[in-house]
Amino acid sequence: MSHITLTTDFGLSDWFVGSMKGVIASIAPDACVIDITHGIEAGDISGGAFALLASTRYFPVGTVHVVVVDPGVGSLRGAIAAECDGHRFVAPDNGILSHVLPEGRAARIHRVENKRFLLEPVSRTFHGRDVFAPVGAHLSRGVTLEQLGPAVDAIVRLAFPCHRKVDAGIEGEVIYVDRFGNAITTIPEAAGPRQKSVSVAGRAIPVASCYADVPPGSPVAIFGSTGYLEIAINGGSAGRVLGLRRGSTVVLR
Amino acid sequence: MSHITLTTDFGLSDWFVGSMKGVIASIAPDACVIDITHGIEAGDISGGAFALLASTRYFPVGTVHVVVVDPGVGSLRGAIAAECDGHRFVAPDNGILSHVLPEGRAARIHRVENKRFLLEPVSRTFHGRDVFAPVGAHLSRGVTLEQLGPAVDAIVRLAFPCHRKVDAGIEGEVIYVDRFGNAITTIPEAAGPRQKSVSVAGRAIPVASCYADVPPGSPVAIFGSTGYLEIAINGGSAGRVLGLRRGSTVVLR
Amino acid sequence: MSHITLTTDFGLSDWFVGSMKGVIASIAPDACVIDITHGIEAGDISGGAFALLASTRYFPVGTVHVVVVDPGVGSLRGAIAAECDGHRFVAPDNGILSHVLPEGRAARIHRVENKRFLLEPVSRTFHGRDVFAPVGAHLSRGVTLEQLGPAVDAIVRLAFPCHRKVDAGIEGEVIYVDRFGNAITTIPEAAGPRQKSVSVAGRAIPVASCYADVPPGSPVAIFGSTGYLEIAINGGSAGRVLGLRRGSTVVLR
Repeated sequence: MSHITLTTDFGLSDWFVGSMKGVIASIAPDACVIDITHGIEAGDISGGAFALLASTRYFPVGTVHVVVVDPGVGSLRGAIAAECDGHRFVAPDNGILSHVLPEGRAARIHRVENKRFLLEPVSRTFHGRDVFAPVGAHLSRGVTLEQLGPAVDAIVRLAFPCHRKVDAGIEGEVIYVDRFGNAITTIPEAAGPRQKSVSVAGRAIPVASCYADVPPGSPVAIFGSTGYLEIAINGGSAGRVLGLRRGSTVVLR
Repeated sequence: MSHITLTTDFGLSDWFVGSMKGVIASIAPDACVIDITHGIEAGDISGGAFALLASTRYFPVGTVHVVVVDPGVGSLRGAIAAECDGHRFVAPDNGILSHVLPEGRAARIHRVENKRFLLEPVSRTFHGRDVFAPVGAHLSRGVTLEQLGPAVDAIVRLAFPCHRKVDAGIEGEVIYVDRFGNAITTIPEAAGPRQKSVSVAGRAIPVASCYADVPPGSPVAIFGSTGYLEIAINGGSAGRVLGLRRGSTVVLR
Repeated sequence: MSHITLTTDFGLSDWFVGSMKGVIASIAPDACVIDITHGIEAGDISGGAFALLASTRYFPVGTVHVVVVDPGVGSLRGAIAAECDGHRFVAPDNGILSHVLPEGRAARIHRVENKRFLLEPVSRTFHGRDVFAPVGAHLSRGVTLEQLGPAVDAIVRLAFPCHRKVDAGIEGEVIYVDRFGNAITTIPEAAGPRQKSVSVAGRAIPVASCYADVPPGSPVAIFGSTGYLEIAINGGSAGRVLGLRRGSTVVLR
């Protein structure tokens, strides 16, 4: 059974994701297609890149990950396909693969140029259906990166989420606020595993090991499931209550 | 591998879609079930009909499409199953199959009457689970239209989306506003492939070939992935910014 | 083909459900994973329990149901796996399985303790990915309840939805309001199959057999697809129009 994942900002209210799956079913009828999420905010390349970082490693080696957050659809931005650690990816070359193809990790990256593996004609506005879905399906059936187009050395890259030492401790920032309102920061557990408090929005918040370590409604910081420090409210939304959003500063101390 | 698609207005917050898939798994355990969308607005037959027009042709021949936008559930409206161009459909007879069974195209249409292929008992409010899912599953396993019930000649039909010549150019209307706020019109590319401007809500909007052909925040018209003219805002929502909704008039000139 | 269902409050905007499916694909690559819903309100154990009651029986015998509504994640609440009527379940021991493992029905229930079937390490905040998904996948591949941990007699239980005789008739309450605004009550059809009227929010509402039995915009009561009395508005939202929410009283008379 070959697995193909989809990660997009298409939402689920229209037929866009369904159409991509129809294209895949037409090319690779036995593939198992799994949605990572279609809830990336429209055009949010950074959020999509983080979602991939947090999830793709839980899939089996050999999985093909089709990624479409593509505000530049139809313009001159390229399309790329890549392999790293046994996973394959196909996406627009706009930075969204930055964290799953980190610099310094061995990866093979090719431009997608061979029209033989695209739908005909390619529309102006829906390369998810006409380019990325069919290329992903062909990859899952054994087409090689070499067949898609020439190897490339450089791709568009986002800066990797970072943290730094400051006088007060370790400073990072919020990189993602999830549906529960948990604010995931750029501070990895290895940076401060024994620290006991986080300064956020002028408040000192205790580092604990589960939400229920604090009373309902109280803020808490936890090294969470992504490996990074998260700011949460037990039973509530840290994003809303503490006013946290991407870029908000946090200091672990 | 047989494919069954689902298109409904059930949303994803309740167990309705899950129950339909449970019924299908019980009857056709090896079928691959694919969601086209469950985000059709409640009772929006016209929106559902357009979603099918835009998506079903991307699925393999042999696919069974189960469609449930059914504000008349439990009343005397009939249920129909049909075959056209190698695709099969099962849906309430309320117009939702209008655009995938267009008049003049050869299609076989039968009423669904044979209770042997329904759940027992059929509930008053959830024919998606009790009628349409099991019938779709049985179709995917080889049950024929003839076994479901008698052939019918006429079904309920929506008017097909239309455009017309006017002094100023080609007039159409908005038929669907998608999750990005793109307003899809009834003007097909063949009607005016060389026109350069669209008049919408008192504004002249350029026809371009990708969103990025205009500055961020600016309106643009593109012959989009459905084959119809779409009004968009680069990086924004044309529905919201220009006040477009279904029925809004546009003139290509 | 073995089937695994997922029911959570994770929503679909993040990568949480996708990650669970990645874990399952890694352990049980041929399993067919079906979403019941991920739209349970955050931490709403009662709503999740009702969703399971309404849906799981439509799946084939042998299905494994993975359930994660888990506000106590990381605390001392246990994890359980159970079998009842040929269906298997894995969930936190917080009451969410109450209605699918009703008291008096023969069920085998075990604690999940064997770390061999969990991801390593188990995170503090995402047992859906690290505990429940892998245990569900292992169950679908033949691991037994006995292998997971010791049998237990008692689990956390919610009160079962109830109704009672009162002078005016049969009193129940709203237990769930669905996406259409239909308010499902705790009054089963067997309790009053011939009654003709319901008193709700000071109004008398007729019991009918389909939404279209009343004019558009009018309220109607129907014994619905769950087997319980539902309060609806033909073409509208009873939750919004009548101000119904969980716990609102209704009297069938």
